[in-house]
Amino acid sequence: MTSLKIPASVPSASRSAYRQNYAQLTNNSGRLLLIAGDQKVEHLNDDFVGAGISLEDASPEHLFKIAAASNGGVLATHLGLISRYGHDYRQVPYIVKLNGKTNLGTDEKNSAKLWWTVEDIIDFKQQSGLKIVGIGYTIYLGGATEAKMLAKAARAIFEAHQAGLTAIIWVYPRGKNIKEEDIHTIAGAAGVAAALDADFVKIKYPYNLKDQKTTATKYQEAVKAAGRTKVICVGGDKRSVTQLLDSTDKQLKISGTFGLAMGRNLHQRSLEEAAKLARALGAIIFKQKTAKEATAIYKQKTTSSKSSGFLGLF
Amino acid sequence: MTSLKIPASVPSASRSAYRQNYAQLTNNSGRLLLIAGDQKVEHLNDDFVGAGISLEDASPEHLFKIAAASNGGVLATHLGLISRYGHDYRQVPYIVKLNGKTNLGTDEKNSAKLWWTVEDIIDFKQQSGLKIVGIGYTIYLGGATEAKMLAKAARAIFEAHQAGLTAIIWVYPRGKNIKEEDIHTIAGAAGVAAALDADFVKIKYPYNLKDQKTTATKYQEAVKAAGRTKVICVGGDKRSVTQLLDSTDKQLKISGTFGLAMGRNLHQRSLEEAAKLARALGAIIFKQKTAKEATAIYKQKTTSSKSSGFLGLF
Amino acid sequence: MTSLKIPASVPSASRSAYRQNYAQLTNNSGRLLLIAGDQKVEHLNDDFVGAGISLEDASPEHLFKIAAASNGGVLATHLGLISRYGHDYRQVPYIVKLNGKTNLGTDEKNSAKLWWTVEDIIDFKQQSGLKIVGIGYTIYLGGATEAKMLAKAARAIFEAHQAGLTAIIWVYPRGKNIKEEDIHTIAGAAGVAAALDADFVKIKYPYNLKDQKTTATKYQEAVKAAGRTKVICVGGDKRSVTQLLDSTDKQLKISGTFGLAMGRNLHQRSLEEAAKLARALGAIIFKQKTAKEATAIYKQKTTSSKSSGFLGLF
Amino acid sequence: MTSLKIPASVPSASRSAYRQNYAQLTNNSGRLLLIAGDQKVEHLNDDFVGAGISLEDASPEHLFKIAAASNGGVLATHLGLISRYGHDYRQVPYIVKLNGKTNLGTDEKNSAKLWWTVEDIIDFKQQSGLKIVGIGYTIYLGGATEAKMLAKAARAIFEAHQAGLTAIIWVYPRGKNIKEEDIHTIAGAAGVAAALDADFVKIKYPYNLKDQKTTATKYQEAVKAAGRTKVICVGGDKRSVTQLLDSTDKQLKISGTFGLAMGRNLHQRSLEEAAKLARALGAIIFKQKTAKEATAIYKQKTTSSKSSGFLGLF
Amino acid sequence: MTSLKIPASVPSASRSAYRQNYAQLTNNSGRLLLIAGDQKVEHLNDDFVGAGISLEDASPEHLFKIAAASNGGVLATHLGLISRYGHDYRQVPYIVKLNGKTNLGTDEKNSAKLWWTVEDIIDFKQQSGLKIVGIGYTIYLGGATEAKMLAKAARAIFEAHQAGLTAIIWVYPRGKNIKEEDIHTIAGAAGVAAALDADFVKIKYPYNLKDQKTTATKYQEAVKAAGRTKVICVGGDKRSVTQLLDSTDKQLKISGTFGLAMGRNLHQRSLEEAAKLARALGAIIFKQKTAKEATAIYKQKTTSSKSSGFLGLF
Repeated sequence: MTSLKIPASVPSASRSAYRQNYAQLTNNSGRLLLIAGDQKVEHLNDDFVGAGISLEDASPEHLFKIAAASNGGVLATHLGLISRYGHDYRQVPYIVKLNGKTNLGTDEKNSAKLWWTVEDIIDFKQQSGLKIVGIGYTIYLGGATEAKMLAKAARAIFEAHQAGLTAIIWVYPRGKNIKEEDIHTIAGAAGVAAALDADFVKIKYPYNLKDQKTTATKYQEAVKAAGRTKVICVGGDKRSVTQLLDSTDKQLKISGTFGLAMGRNLHQRSLEEAAKLARALGAIIFKQKTAKEATAIYKQKTTSSKSSGFLGLF
Repeated sequence: MTSLKIPASVPSASRSAYRQNYAQLTNNSGRLLLIAGDQKVEHLNDDFVGAGISLEDASPEHLFKIAAASNGGVLATHLGLISRYGHDYRQVPYIVKLNGKTNLGTDEKNSAKLWWTVEDIIDFKQQSGLKIVGIGYTIYLGGATEAKMLAKAARAIFEAHQAGLTAIIWVYPRGKNIKEEDIHTIAGAAGVAAALDADFVKIKYPYNLKDQKTTATKYQEAVKAAGRTKVICVGGDKRSVTQLLDSTDKQLKISGTFGLAMGRNLHQRSLEEAAKLARALGAIIFKQKTAKEATAIYKQKTTSSKSSGFLGLF
Repeated sequence: MTSLKIPASVPSASRSAYRQNYAQLTNNSGRLLLIAGDQKVEHLNDDFVGAGISLEDASPEHLFKIAAASNGGVLATHLGLISRYGHDYRQVPYIVKLNGKTNLGTDEKNSAKLWWTVEDIIDFKQQSGLKIVGIGYTIYLGGATEAKMLAKAARAIFEAHQAGLTAIIWVYPRGKNIKEEDIHTIAGAAGVAAALDADFVKIKYPYNLKDQKTTATKYQEAVKAAGRTKVICVGGDKRSVTQLLDSTDKQLKISGTFGLAMGRNLHQRSLEEAAKLARALGAIIFKQKTAKEATAIYKQKTTSSKSSGFLGLF
Repeated sequence: MTSLKIPASVPSASRSAYRQNYAQLTNNSGRLLLIAGDQKVEHLNDDFVGAGISLEDASPEHLFKIAAASNGGVLATHLGLISRYGHDYRQVPYIVKLNGKTNLGTDEKNSAKLWWTVEDIIDFKQQSGLKIVGIGYTIYLGGATEAKMLAKAARAIFEAHQAGLTAIIWVYPRGKNIKEEDIHTIAGAAGVAAALDADFVKIKYPYNLKDQKTTATKYQEAVKAAGRTKVICVGGDKRSVTQLLDSTDKQLKISGTFGLAMGRNLHQRSLEEAAKLARALGAIIFKQKTAKEATAIYKQKTTSSKSSGFLGLF
Repeated sequence: MTSLKIPASVPSASRSAYRQNYAQLTNNSGRLLLIAGDQKVEHLNDDFVGAGISLEDASPEHLFKIAAASNGGVLATHLGLISRYGHDYRQVPYIVKLNGKTNLGTDEKNSAKLWWTVEDIIDFKQQSGLKIVGIGYTIYLGGATEAKMLAKAARAIFEAHQAGLTAIIWVYPRGKNIKEEDIHTIAGAAGVAAALDADFVKIKYPYNLKDQKTTATKYQEAVKAAGRTKVICVGGDKRSVTQLLDSTDKQLKISGTFGLAMGRNLHQRSLEEAAKLARALGAIIFKQKTAKEATAIYKQKTTSSKSSGFLGLF
C-alpha cells in the first residue's frame, strides 16, 4: 500500500491520520473485507433468528466475535453496538454506519438523515480509543429522497476527510423501472460515488447470470466508472463457500474490484464456520490467493489454542 | 450492580455522573421500575377521570405521590410537570420524556421532534438540583416518521451519554400489516434500540396469550436481540394484582428482562393501593422475590407512621 | 401573592425577574385579566369594523387605550403593535404573542412557527424598557401541525422561564370529530399545558349550556387536570355585561379558574364602555368581588379627572 | 419629517442610522415613491420586451436610470442588480427585495425563503457604501405558505430594525374565494403589516371602481387598520398619466396614504417619459402638489443641462 | 480584460482574489470555455459508455485530460472528482458544481440542496492549493423546487463573492407548458441570473431552428436581459465540428454571448479529437477568430512534443 493516493479533501494536517485509518481499514492491503453489521436495523431480527441460522446469531455480540476472528475484516455497524461491545473487541477496526431504516410497513421511508454527525464520530473515536476508521452511509438513487441523500453523503464524506477518517458509501438504484442488477446501471451508481469523493463504494453484483466469467468482464465498466474510488461488491444471498470464494476471486482478478462486503453469508453461520470463511476470503482479498488456495485455507482445521489465528485476537 | 458496563459513548469525564444516574435510575439494582407518567399528553384526560379510576388521579400530583411512595420507582414524564412538582418530591428520580403526541384527531401525527434539547435537560438538572437521571423518547417503527425518529433518538441518546445521563427508549412497530404483539417483531424493535445505544428499551409484551410460561420463554428472543441494552416490558391494560405480579415474575426470571413500566395500572388506583402495588413489584424487580412473596408484601398493612416504608419519603 | 410557586425551569438567577414579571402580569394578585389583541392577524379587519362595532375600534391604538384604562389588565398582542404604540403606553404590561394565522382561504395553515425567537423578545424588553412580562403561543391539538406546535411551545416556554419571563398558552383541540366545547376534551387540553410548563393556559368554556352552575362545577375537571398551571377561560362571543360578570364570577368561585381573557367583548365597545367593563371584571378577578358588586362598579359614573381610576394611567 | 416615531424595535444604538435610512427612503418627506424593480424575477422578460414597451426597457440598467432621474424615488430590487449597477448609481437609495418567484408553470410556489439574510444585507451595505436603506419582502395571505411567510417577514423586519434599516412589506391576499380588490380584505392585509412592525406596507387599490372619490374615502379603512404602519398603494396596470396623477392625489389627500409604488407604469416608458412622470408623482407625494399642478410639471420641457432637476443626479 | 466590473457583493478585501479567479476562469479574456463535467451524476454512465463514444471516456480521468489539453478551458464538476484527480492536473482551473441529480426514476427530484457549503469550497481551495476559481449551481424554474433553488443560489453566490470566488449558474425553465427553447423564455431565465448576481449564466440555445443568423439576432434579447451577467450557451446535442464552430462564432459575434459550455460534444471524443476541438473553440472565444480560422486550427496536426500547445500542460 505504498501508493495510496490521498484525496485532496484531506488537509495536510489530517493526512497521517488518514493513512493510519486507511491502513487499518484495509488490513494494510489497500483492499477491503467489510463485515456488514447493520441488519439489526435494516432487517430487524429476520436475519438473526430462523431456519438455517446459527443460534449464536441471536445476540449482536456474534458480529463482534466474527470480526475479531476474521483476521483483517472491518465491522460496519451502528454506533450503539460499537458503544456496547467495542471495548471488549478493541482489535477490530470499525466503520460507523450513519443512517438506516427498517423493513417494516409499506410507506416509503426517508433514511437520509444522519443518526450521528461526523463530529460526533470524531469525538467518539477520540474518547473511546477504539479503532473507528471511517464512516458509512447508504444512498438510494432514483427516488424522492435521492437529493437529500446525495447532499448528506457529500457533506459527511467531506467532513470525514477533513478529520482524516475514511468514507464508504453503499449506492443502490431503487424504484419502478430501475434494473437494480443491470451492470450499466450499477456503473452509474459507482460513478456517483466518485463524484461524492467516497474512498470505497459498495454496489450490487449480478450473481445470478449464467456465465460468471463474462459477467466479471462486463463488470469492469463499473470499476472504470468509479475512477479512483474503489469498488467492493455486496455479498448477496446465501451461497455455498465454493461459490463465494469463486465469485470473489473473479471480481478481484477480472473485474478489478478491491474487496467484498459480507453480511448474512457470515453471521448466519456459527462463529467457527464464519471465521473459517472470513479467513479464506481474506486470503483472496489481502494476499491475492486463488479461489482454490482459499478453499484449502477454509478446510484447514482451526484450533482454539492461543497460537491459532483468529482466537488469538481475544 | 458492581458489574455495570458503561457504554463507550460516555466519555471518561462523565463516567462517575453516569454511574450515579444509573444507580438512582435503578434503585442500585441494575433493574428498573418505571412509572410511566406521559399520559397527560398521550391520552389527554381519558386515563385520569372516569369509571373505575380513583378520584385522586384527577390531579397530576397523584403521579408524584405514587412515585415518592413506590420505594425505588422512577417517574418518566414531561418536563412541565417536573418543573411544577419536582421541588416538592426531591427524593424521586426522574426521566424527562422528550417527545409525545395526543390521541386527538385522525391525522397521522409526526411526534419525532424533541420538545426540549438534551442540553436543556442538562441545564435543568443542574439548575434545579433535582434527580434528573436520564431522558426518554418514543419511536414508532414502520411509518413515514420512522427515519426522523431514529435520527432524533440516536442523537439524543448520544448527547445524553456525553453528559453522563441515561437514556430509555420506547420502541413500537406501528402500521398496517404490522403485528404489534408478535414476539419476533418485538425482538426486532429491541434490536433497533441496541443499535441506537439505549440503556433500557421499553417494548410490548403479549399478555393475552394462553400459556404464559411458553410466552415468557419465547420472549427470550427479544432479550437476546437487545444485546446489552436492557429490556423492560410495558404494563399493558389494567389487570389484577395477582396477574401483574405473576407476569412480572415470569418476565424477569424466565425471559430475562430487567424490569417493568407501569402507567394506568398504578395511577388509576388510590395512592394507598398504588403504593402497595409498587412495593410488591419492587420486591420482585429489586430484590428478586417470587410472585408469591410479592403478593404477601402487597397484602401487608401499611401504616402512616414515620417508620413505614413509603410514607417515610415525604 | 405571597405563595407564588416558581417553576423549577426558572433558574435561581432569574427568579427575581420572574417574580416581578409575574406580579406585573397578574396585577399583584396571582390572577389574570388578559386583553386578547391578536385578532388583527387572526380575524383581519372583521373584528374591528362592522355593524355593532365602535368606530373607535378601527385603529389598533384602541387596544392600547383600553389596556391602559383597564386598571390591571395585560395586553397580549404581536410585537409589531407593541413596537409602534408601546412607548406611548408604558404603564401597560405586555404579553408578546409569538405565532398566528389569518382566517383567509381554506388551506390548513401551519402556524407553528415562531415569528420572533424568545431571545428576540428578551432583547426587545431590555432595549425598549417596556413591561414585556411574558410570551404567548397558540396550540391546536389534533391536526397535522400538533407535533410542531407542541415542540415549539415547550421550547419557547423553557427559554422564557430561563430568562424569568412568564408564558401563557392558548390550547384548542381542533378538527373533525373533535368536540371543542366538551369539558373532558378541554380538560385534556389543560393537562397538555401542564406538561408543557405553562404558567397560564387559556382554554374554551361552554358558555351556551343551560345550567351554568352545573357547568361551572363540571369545569373543575379542567382546573384539576391543569395541576399548578393556572386556567383562564376565553371570553367567547359577544354577550351582555350581566352575563359576562356572572359567568366570570362562577368560573373563579366555582370552577377555580384564575382569570379571564377578553377580546372582542372589550375592544368592540367604545373606550368608555370597555374601560367600565374591564374595571368591573377586574373587581371580580383581582379583588374577589361578587358579580353583583362588580355590576355596581360597572354602573358607576366615570370622570375624566386625574383622580379617577382608569384615566389616571394616561 | 420632524415627528418621526421610531419603533421600539430599533434599539437606541441604531436610532440615528434608522433616522438617516428613513430620511433617504422618503426623500426627507416621510412619504414614499417606490420604484418596483423586482419584475425580472416575478414576470421574467414579459414586462421588459413587447408591444408598447420602450426598447430601452430591454436592459436592467433602465431601472437604475429611471431611479436616478426620479428625483426622490427609491429602487426596490434584488441584490444581484444592485451589486452590478449600484456603484454607477450611487445617488439612488435602495430597498433590497429578499424574496421572489417567477410566473412559470402551474405549481404553487413557496417563495417564503429569504434569498439573503438581513445580516447579508447589513454586510453588503457597509462593504459597498451604497444607500441600502431597507429591506423588502412579499407576503401572500391565505395559502399554504402563509405561515412561513409571516414568520420570515416578522423576523426579517425585527432584524432590520435592530440594525437601523427600514422594512417594507408587500401584502397580498391570494387564493380561491378571496376578493383581492375588496377594501375590507385589503384593510385586513394592512393590519397584518402593523402586527409585523413594517414601516410601510404596499397593498392593492381598486382602481377600476367607478366613483374614485367614494373609493378613496372607503379606502380610509385600510389606512386606519394599518395604524402607524404607513400605507402605499400599488401602481396597477398601465394607465394614462392623467389617471395616474389623479388617483395618486386622491389616495394621499382623501385616503390618507403615504405614497405610491410604480413598476411597469414607469419602466415600460422611455427614460425621458419615465423621468417626467416620476417627477410629477414626486410633486404630489413629496410636495403635496395637486394633480393639476403635477400635470403641469409633467408637461414641462426637460433639459439635459446640469441645472435641471433630475439629470443633475448623474 | 482591463475593464472588469467587480460586483458590489465582493468586498474590498476580496477584490484581488476575485480578479485572479476571474482571470483564471476566463483565460484572461473575460470570456469562458466551460467544460461541463457533471454528467457522472446527471446522466450516470449513459454519456460515457456506448455506441459512438470513445473508449477513453469510460474513466472520469478523461475529463481532466481534456481540460488540461484544452488550452484555456475550465472544468466544472463535483468536488469528489477534483479531490481524486486535481493534484495530477494542477494547471486546470475548476468550478465546483454544488448540486445535482440523477436521471433515474420518475419522481420529481428536488436537487436544491448544496452538497457542500461555500465555506467547504473555500477551505478546500486553500487546503488543496488547486485553482478552484468558483462555484456552479443548477436552477430549474417553474416547478415546486424553484423557491428553494433561487434562495440557495442567491446565498451561495453571495458567499462566493464575499470570498472572492466567481459564480456560474445553469438556469433552465422546466415543466408542463413551458417552452424550453423559446428565446423569450430563455431571456427570462437570463434575467433571473442577473437578479441573483451570477457572473455567468449558462442557458439554452435553439440550435434546431432553420435560419441560424436570425436566431442569433433574436437571441440578443437574452443577452440584454442578463444585463452585466454574462451569457454562455449550452453545447447541445452532438453535432459536427463545422456546426459547432459556426454556431459558436455566431453566438459570440451576433448575439453577444461570452462563451460556451461543452460536455458530451467534447468528452465523447478521443482525447486527441477533443483537444483539437477545444483549441478551435478557444480560438473563437479567447482570440475572436472566425469560424473559418478556427476550422483551420482544428485541422492542424498536433504533436506530442513539449513545445506543442496543449500537451505542454502535462
